[in-house]
Amino acid sequence: MKEAHPTHCVALSGGVGGAKLALGLSRVLPGDALTVVCNTADDFDHLGLRICPDLDTVMYTLAGIANRVTGWGQAHETWSFLEALSHLGGETWFRLGDRDLATHVERTQRLRAGETLTEVTATLCQALGVTARVLPMSDDPVRTVVLTETGELSFQHYFVRDGCAPTVSGFRFAGIDAARPSPAFLQTLEDDATAATLVCPSNPFVSVDPVLALDGVEEALRRAAAPVVAVSPIVGGAAIKGPAAKMMAELGMPVTAAGVARHYRERNLLDGFVIDDADAGQAAEIEDLGLPTLVTGTVMETLADRERLATETIDFAHGIDSRQRDRAEAAPPERSA
Amino acid sequence: MKEAHPTHCVALSGGVGGAKLALGLSRVLPGDALTVVCNTADDFDHLGLRICPDLDTVMYTLAGIANRVTGWGQAHETWSFLEALSHLGGETWFRLGDRDLATHVERTQRLRAGETLTEVTATLCQALGVTARVLPMSDDPVRTVVLTETGELSFQHYFVRDGCAPTVSGFRFAGIDAARPSPAFLQTLEDDATAATLVCPSNPFVSVDPVLALDGVEEALRRAAAPVVAVSPIVGGAAIKGPAAKMMAELGMPVTAAGVARHYRERNLLDGFVIDDADAGQAAEIEDLGLPTLVTGTVMETLADRERLATETIDFAHGIDSRQRDRAEAAPPERSA
Repeated sequence: MKEAHPTHCVALSGGVGGAKLALGLSRVLPGDALTVVCNTADDFDHLGLRICPDLDTVMYTLAGIANRVTGWGQAHETWSFLEALSHLGGETWFRLGDRDLATHVERTQRLRAGETLTEVTATLCQALGVTARVLPMSDDPVRTVVLTETGELSFQHYFVRDGCAPTVSGFRFAGIDAARPSPAFLQTLEDDATAATLVCPSNPFVSVDPVLALDGVEEALRRAAAPVVAVSPIVGGAAIKGPAAKMMAELGMPVTAAGVARHYRERNLLDGFVIDDADAGQAAEIEDLGLPTLVTGTVMETLADRERLATETIDFAHGIDSRQRDRAEAAPPERSA
Repeated sequence: MKEAHPTHCVALSGGVGGAKLALGLSRVLPGDALTVVCNTADDFDHLGLRICPDLDTVMYTLAGIANRVTGWGQAHETWSFLEALSHLGGETWFRLGDRDLATHVERTQRLRAGETLTEVTATLCQALGVTARVLPMSDDPVRTVVLTETGELSFQHYFVRDGCAPTVSGFRFAGIDAARPSPAFLQTLEDDATAATLVCPSNPFVSVDPVLALDGVEEALRRAAAPVVAVSPIVGGAAIKGPAAKMMAELGMPVTAAGVARHYRERNLLDGFVIDDADAGQAAEIEDLGLPTLVTGTVMETLADRERLATETIDFAHGIDSRQRDRAEAAPPERSA
């Protein structure tokens, strides 16, 4: 393991892919030097319980209790609840394990008692021994709605119930106009101690965009001294996990790392981009967008992979001279690397 | 198994002891000839879920999935939820198994969606293949409060959390004045097809009294043509299960079957009483209260015991000539057997 940097990093994360990098970051940074901000636009109310898939995947991963086989839920899980619910004729399309259920029951109860999602998450993380700070992007409800050829679908209906089968034509984030970023999130972005904001290799459309769409987040990122670096979730024209590649194709975008870079760059948000060795041929194209590009191994199969990518990404971000940054002033076309 | 009676029986039941007789009744009567009315004053909201211990014990027992070792919850149960909840620092004093939890989640969700407890119970029973009709005593919240030397305790705090340790001085049923009996319950009591109302060997104070305390129930029982017969929960000076004997002693009552008979008889409700062979010596005392008394084996260890006691109790009730009944007219002191 390389020497850890003493500066604070903020990671914006969705579920599995983001959680992998978050775990790497949590192992190369001191516990108080990492804030992971999770997408909550996948959250939904199911069986009367508040389910927060991305928050839980990150929390379970950092706590070392994530289920690596499924990519969601807890390890050593049992399924008696779901089996009994099935006998009762209940809804079982969303797989809730017995251990996992404790999280949803405890969270739902605390939310009903008036705690914010930020507070509940802090309590759960503390109980599970997670030392990094894990934040929901917002304490207010934001819900991704997937626009498909056959109509609108709530995200979990699209993602889990329908297995991402419908053809996607766009997205909207219900509630986004009324939602505020979690105060702790905005505060961290604006904090001088924050050395870098890292966009994890998560789905750009349904994991990262909702975070960026929150009122004040894009402005804070542009205003902040810390560089913003994203890791591509697309490697060799495919997503490691999830529907990102399928979505890009259906939206008429090139299914490439460069396509993702362009997606973020159009909003004048990025200072650097990390792509996989497999996509080295796209580095020049991405640099032409005005984005310094790191080419390295981004597929995180082992814990060592996660730690190495975390360290390299932090180093890469540190190497971007913030005094050269002109995001707030210049539009992308005028900007050169 | 004896020949089943074609007439309808109503059983008033609490948890374990009541459920045993209810199971016997369900096996000697046709499915549509039995209504089991369950105490719901033990119900409580816990972890954001509506828990109905007596309803569930009866439902699980009739469905053949009750846990015979614990006397509550389901057989073949697993405990992952509670273990995980403990790790999260949640409340674990009330033991909720993983399978059992499905009942509470499904019920809570349906109640929140606007179904009555009567409707939800019917749905759950149908899903579990229970052919007898199981009714909550009321669709409205009634909550037993135990008056103790150290103050008032909600029933589950007294019963489960504090293990019945506090000394009892009385009870009150919060919400009883505003609560109505489940309409199906009252209708069945008033139905000419009802041949007998059987008070199961349940705790008189916290399982049966709340049912009787509901507005209109005592009047309907007195008005009905069907005789009312109770089975003593006290055998040989002790309760088979639960705190009934301890409560009687603390309330200054003799801890005897006759003490239970007197408790019901004071309200002019009973037409007959069933006691165990062990208490045969009390038969004369109970008959002197104006109550025909059946002496038989009331300890239900085997399924055959349950069926035999059910049949004998039904036969005994049928043998009580309703034309001789004068409950509505006469007070107990004036009445002779």
